[in-house]
Amino acid sequence: MPYQKQTVREVLDKAAAAGRDALTAPEGRRVCEAYGIPTPGEGLASTAEEAVALAAELGGGPVALKIVSPDILHKTEAGGVLVGVEGADAVRAGFEKILANARGYKADAAVDGVQVQQMLTGGQEVIIGATTDPSFGKVVVFGLGGVLVEVLKDVTFRLAPVDKTEARSMLDGIAAAELLRGVRGGEAVDADALADVIVRLSDLVTDFPEIREFDLNPVFAGADGSVAADVRILLDTEPVAAPPQYTREEMLAVMNRLMHPRAVAVIGASNEDGKIGNSVMKNLINGGYLGEIYPINPKADEVLGRKAYARVADVPGEVDVAVFAIPAKFVVSAVREVGEKGIPAAVLIPSGFAETGNVELQKELVQAAREHNVRLLGPNIYGYYYTHENLCATFCTPYDVKGGVALTSQSGGIGMAILGFSRTTRTGVSAIVGLGNKSDLDEDDLLTFFEEDDNTRCIAMHLEDLKDGRAFVRAAQRTTKRKPVVVLKAGRTALGARAASSHTGALAGDDKVYDDILRQAGVVRAYSLNDMLEFARGLPVLPTPKGENVVIITGAGGSGVLLSDACDANGLTLMDIPDDLDTAFRAFIPPFGAAGNPIDITGGEPPSTYEATIRLGLEDPRIHALVLGYWHTIVTPPMVFAELVGRVVGEARAKGIDKPIVASLAGDTEVEQASEYLYDHGVVAYPYTTEKPVAVLGAKYRWARAANLL
Amino acid sequence: MPYQKQTVREVLDKAAAAGRDALTAPEGRRVCEAYGIPTPGEGLASTAEEAVALAAELGGGPVALKIVSPDILHKTEAGGVLVGVEGADAVRAGFEKILANARGYKADAAVDGVQVQQMLTGGQEVIIGATTDPSFGKVVVFGLGGVLVEVLKDVTFRLAPVDKTEARSMLDGIAAAELLRGVRGGEAVDADALADVIVRLSDLVTDFPEIREFDLNPVFAGADGSVAADVRILLDTEPVAAPPQYTREEMLAVMNRLMHPRAVAVIGASNEDGKIGNSVMKNLINGGYLGEIYPINPKADEVLGRKAYARVADVPGEVDVAVFAIPAKFVVSAVREVGEKGIPAAVLIPSGFAETGNVELQKELVQAAREHNVRLLGPNIYGYYYTHENLCATFCTPYDVKGGVALTSQSGGIGMAILGFSRTTRTGVSAIVGLGNKSDLDEDDLLTFFEEDDNTRCIAMHLEDLKDGRAFVRAAQRTTKRKPVVVLKAGRTALGARAASSHTGALAGDDKVYDDILRQAGVVRAYSLNDMLEFARGLPVLPTPKGENVVIITGAGGSGVLLSDACDANGLTLMDIPDDLDTAFRAFIPPFGAAGNPIDITGGEPPSTYEATIRLGLEDPRIHALVLGYWHTIVTPPMVFAELVGRVVGEARAKGIDKPIVASLAGDTEVEQASEYLYDHGVVAYPYTTEKPVAVLGAKYRWARAANLL
Repeated sequence: MPYQKQTVREVLDKAAAAGRDALTAPEGRRVCEAYGIPTPGEGLASTAEEAVALAAELGGGPVALKIVSPDILHKTEAGGVLVGVEGADAVRAGFEKILANARGYKADAAVDGVQVQQMLTGGQEVIIGATTDPSFGKVVVFGLGGVLVEVLKDVTFRLAPVDKTEARSMLDGIAAAELLRGVRGGEAVDADALADVIVRLSDLVTDFPEIREFDLNPVFAGADGSVAADVRILLDTEPVAAPPQYTREEMLAVMNRLMHPRAVAVIGASNEDGKIGNSVMKNLINGGYLGEIYPINPKADEVLGRKAYARVADVPGEVDVAVFAIPAKFVVSAVREVGEKGIPAAVLIPSGFAETGNVELQKELVQAAREHNVRLLGPNIYGYYYTHENLCATFCTPYDVKGGVALTSQSGGIGMAILGFSRTTRTGVSAIVGLGNKSDLDEDDLLTFFEEDDNTRCIAMHLEDLKDGRAFVRAAQRTTKRKPVVVLKAGRTALGARAASSHTGALAGDDKVYDDILRQAGVVRAYSLNDMLEFARGLPVLPTPKGENVVIITGAGGSGVLLSDACDANGLTLMDIPDDLDTAFRAFIPPFGAAGNPIDITGGEPPSTYEATIRLGLEDPRIHALVLGYWHTIVTPPMVFAELVGRVVGEARAKGIDKPIVASLAGDTEVEQASEYLYDHGVVAYPYTTEKPVAVLGAKYRWARAANLL
Repeated sequence: MPYQKQTVREVLDKAAAAGRDALTAPEGRRVCEAYGIPTPGEGLASTAEEAVALAAELGGGPVALKIVSPDILHKTEAGGVLVGVEGADAVRAGFEKILANARGYKADAAVDGVQVQQMLTGGQEVIIGATTDPSFGKVVVFGLGGVLVEVLKDVTFRLAPVDKTEARSMLDGIAAAELLRGVRGGEAVDADALADVIVRLSDLVTDFPEIREFDLNPVFAGADGSVAADVRILLDTEPVAAPPQYTREEMLAVMNRLMHPRAVAVIGASNEDGKIGNSVMKNLINGGYLGEIYPINPKADEVLGRKAYARVADVPGEVDVAVFAIPAKFVVSAVREVGEKGIPAAVLIPSGFAETGNVELQKELVQAAREHNVRLLGPNIYGYYYTHENLCATFCTPYDVKGGVALTSQSGGIGMAILGFSRTTRTGVSAIVGLGNKSDLDEDDLLTFFEEDDNTRCIAMHLEDLKDGRAFVRAAQRTTKRKPVVVLKAGRTALGARAASSHTGALAGDDKVYDDILRQAGVVRAYSLNDMLEFARGLPVLPTPKGENVVIITGAGGSGVLLSDACDANGLTLMDIPDDLDTAFRAFIPPFGAAGNPIDITGGEPPSTYEATIRLGLEDPRIHALVLGYWHTIVTPPMVFAELVGRVVGEARAKGIDKPIVASLAGDTEVEQASEYLYDHGVVAYPYTTEKPVAVLGAKYRWARAANLL
């Protein structure tokens, strides 16, 4: 059945005309029917026999009987409502009783008849709803109904609209999903029918954005279909302003000039040590940037040996980026000059805008930039790096370890942690970008660029909010198909303080919405700063696994147990080792060692045992990833282990075998050097932890699954 | 009502005599009644009017009617059962119908009457049960009843018996606890009455250990009491052997000699480099042990300059510890000799026992040790350290950073990780002990010693199982009153593969039982190896907090958000800052900085702002712990921050103010040195992570709460 949009339009317009922000129950029913959402059967009976026939048509179960009369407004008061009426005799008697009551209540009332309405019982009570998230817009929710679920908040969210597959994934996305599949002899619900209701509801709120909140609660989901027993629809009385939208081409155009500039102007460039305009100049020069650098400073002839200009207008050639190092109060007029010069991107290091309460100045800034066709990065940022252009447009220190990860942060403090961590671990970086107040350019612009950027193999983002969650999801869904996107969403615990008038609204605590929708977008979420940093470091190092079979090879039985725990915690599948492979492993390990998985080669073994088993693990095509547990012994010292693993992995790669390998090294302090050696040779290795290496592997798998690569 | 033990005894003996491993429903009911566990009311009616009267006495709600006749075994087949009978007329009719059915089924059946049994509805369905855990013995379980809870496994366990307070804590120990307190207008259950049932059940299984599994499922818990609607009791047909028990004095006696030996014999001491007997000798000597060292080696006159003896019997003086460095096959006879010499403790480094499948040899070993009054550490261990005696009785390298944490591990690999981690972080250690196969001495012996050991301020244990969970809990409950005990329980995911015939048994996945009971024992559980190590390092450094008020002071707003997330994740309470204190903080920070909590002093502030706010945080007695977020800037470089914090903390301590302080440092690599400096000055500090410092503070709080110090 096609959607009857016109019907819904009429209902909503009528409510709007009356200035109402909620629909009545019959209006809600009409809206549901117009979109094919099943509601309880009902009909109007003029005679007792018609009522009996109707009740039988409605399945023969209990029905509610209600007087229908334009002259009786308070049905219950008039004795005009009976519920739970079951069986022909009872329906007949009920019909007569209601009519009698009505006559007793108001002798001359005009009676249209008695409404006979199916009462739903049985099946599984679920809630399906939609709400309007300040960042993501329309989101749909699904969960089990009832008090217990309300207490446990076992619900899952998706960005609307959802297709059938996504809707089906919601049924599996709650903790109590098993219940829908039928437990203890219970019947499985018709998952297709249930998912269909979710799809229809998500289409409805998408087609009619003025529907602010929508509850179908409860929906009775059974083996033979789902019926929404109760409907509640709340409306926005004022239209919501959409954030400005840019096309992909527009985003790429400005981002390409920002990241690959042929010329950079530094507004506020200075010769004075300790000034931000001095640090930026030094970093650009010392960082090795090969494009033109134009210092802008009305009081200097040259800055650090480069000819200075009083104003950007004076610069002879074309300029791609203007880096601002001047006080906040001068920024707006300088942005106008930047626009007049045709510079497309302004990098706004200065603080003193919204973050210090100066919201008006920031509005003015954004306005000026839009008018002059300038896109803004910041304000209130440390700047940005793009290592493959040797570009360090920042007041921090230069960074020169080129590599595949792009990192972004909303906070300057976190940006500094990114820099320090990257430097100490020698993480190969393509870009580090500060976003600060995100007055304009934000995560979706960056993602759109990094998706296309061949130098970037993984993106890691720290963020506290998304100004346009829907644009982010769009960009992320494209990007995560090609490379992992890691997100650390801060502010997890600042839960829904917003007022909500529906169950769905009340259930939509910010973090749960973010969690589900980031997953829907294919994003790997990091739940701690250190995880974000380690994922950023490790994901580009690990090749993409080709399947789910993970094998643990360990010298320490104790590490094997902890590594198994970690695999389970990270959703990894320990391969069920086939007999022939078990035999093959057993040939290398002592009789009391444990084959199976973990493969425990035991502690006293020489390097050759590690080597033979790891080689077997790499060469057997049924194994897709290896987790190594090393135990420091005199027989196989740390660096001997590291070098042999590096060699075996290198030989395998030469043969075209490239599987993700992670390692946990247990031992005295020499294992630190061994871990570094391994990391440098493509094995994600850590000392003193069994969890971290497996967490990085788990993150790689989460991405690969989301990108449908397995 | 006192427990009627004799009644239970009779029921159980009768079942045992019949060789049954399950009680019948009436037997179960008798057992419950004997221990005052409420069951549904019932009675026998000889006439219809008696039935009507009985049904009224039982509350007037629905009843079940059942024929009682020695000649009718299959009641239902005979039409002798009616359920849900409500109201005098229905009861009367039901009585007559059952009698008529019975006569129709078997005309000459002798009929005793009709059983009238209260049918329970309403209230909250819960499950209360008990099972026999292989490690902990009798444990009780509590959870909500019904299919949904079975799916979600929302249950909690305690070691039996429990007192009323512990039983009450079980009601709060499930995720859906709110439901018992009444939600959405639901009535709160009578928590006292419900807890009372738990206590009685726990006493019952404690008094009668042959009760293997016990289900009260469902129990209807209401506002006016709890009634067990269904009872299922399973019995052990064979008695379970108890592990050997030692008194506290016996444990302390041997442990004191093990940890403070005046003389150590090394059996298998060797002059040959690379031999374990050589490494042990070197470590004892080079470690600086000042007691006597007796090498035992029949083929040498002296070992490393010490006079050697052919057998321990030849050693002239008294010996406290014999360290074994000989092959497995010689160990048993050597243990006998050690016993004959009167040496109370044998440290068994050799492997080749149960861990390699040689279970018989290990049994023989244990048997020999018992007969000769020798307690065994190991076998299959790296040895042990007790730093305050400069004792390194191990084949690993010496460790000399004396301090307050005692670490133990079941696995040698994890022991090596402990050693490496401790060395690289310069963690102050009192002892490191390998437990290996735990053939004899185990965690409870060690805890008993460490509890009394003034050199030890915190104990951290890696374990894969507990041979005698009950003895461990006893020791832990004492110890945790005085000092924190951290446990990393490996094998979390090796979930209940054991067969279970009751719901309780099926719910008792190993890890959930460990989790709840370790918490009951006051233990701080670490869920990862690295957490265990960091807790071990940090807990002795942090003073015990005096209250729950935690305050975050941060230079980076972004860190503040992540630190708040971490506080929430770790169960810490961010103090609601009183107005006067807010004013006091605001006096030091820029107008656009955020007071409240986190206190965001903003990024560009000089050292004096950090100093003033931290001093205020230390000196105001309403604040109990500080979390610092540092942001690397030119104005306040890392070491300047570290030194000022060290100074302010030192000054406060000089005034007798000692609060736990942790810090997260975001910045370039210099923050690593600053973090180390801070750690050395009593502030638990980390670079590049907001989670770790808060996790350590959280662990300290978890312990302090369990020890009732807050």
